[in-house]
Amino acid sequence: METAAMDTLTETKFRTAMRRLTSTIAIVSARGEEDTGVLMTSATSLCMDPPSVLVAVNQKVSAHAAIKASGLFRVNLLHADHIALLEPFSGKMKGAERFQIGSWSFEADGARLTDAVASIGCVADGSLDYGSHTIFVGRVTDVVLGDLEHTLLWREGQSARTDA
Amino acid sequence: METAAMDTLTETKFRTAMRRLTSTIAIVSARGEEDTGVLMTSATSLCMDPPSVLVAVNQKVSAHAAIKASGLFRVNLLHADHIALLEPFSGKMKGAERFQIGSWSFEADGARLTDAVASIGCVADGSLDYGSHTIFVGRVTDVVLGDLEHTLLWREGQSARTDA
Repeated sequence: METAAMDTLTETKFRTAMRRLTSTIAIVSARGEEDTGVLMTSATSLCMDPPSVLVAVNQKVSAHAAIKASGLFRVNLLHADHIALLEPFSGKMKGAERFQIGSWSFEADGARLTDAVASIGCVADGSLDYGSHTIFVGRVTDVVLGDLEHTLLWREGQSARTDA
Repeated sequence: METAAMDTLTETKFRTAMRRLTSTIAIVSARGEEDTGVLMTSATSLCMDPPSVLVAVNQKVSAHAAIKASGLFRVNLLHADHIALLEPFSGKMKGAERFQIGSWSFEADGARLTDAVASIGCVADGSLDYGSHTIFVGRVTDVVLGDLEHTLLWREGQSARTDA
């Protein structure tokens, strides 16, 4: 089962498989030299003992450096109506300018989207570098639940919802 | 931001937040002394360089020992119509008996659900133990795409779909 570089066909099929994987969209925020945040689909629960989540963050984005520096981050689960946040936090805008879109409260562990389905404050309690990304484990320290429960989903390269 | 044990209210809110997080349901399989598999909602893509996924596996389940022993696993993304597989692979059944439900092909890296939305063969290429779980990084070696594209989702403690 030792493998050389993956062939192109397998890589293409993997991209297709990952497009089919439906995920909740989150903005992971952290406070570095300034508040920063990045859109992702990898945020998920890790375990309840201790209560924890994991996120996979590209090593090139500013949120990665901010989490490394502060040891803190926040996972904001987007609501189905948060579509306006997708472009600003997917690299189309940089820096503090992004936080003028949507309603944000600037906490020590990262910006909190005040009408998120849930906003989860975390202490970075472990990490694993792999390829272009780092997996950060977040031990949960704070949870703010929103009034609305339906998360914004991502599949096939576009947003989706379960409550349509 | 040093924290003691999480208070009960925060833990309750965290459970609610995680119930709201919508995820694709996967069966992660591996070949230990016998074929084994476990249902999970944490399987997600990690990065494209190299093509890789991550899964978080409870250290008490047989699939955990099988992955540790073989260094291989397979992620089968369930289709929206695979509801009959949920109970057998969530602990209600043990051992090889489970694989009599659904259509399986027994590969070296783990059982492949032949009509999965996608089945992704992996070499375990890194791991991180945390609390009750281990995060396994899987470097992708093989991808089989199914004809049907809509994955089975999990939210609020029950299955859901985007194509309803």
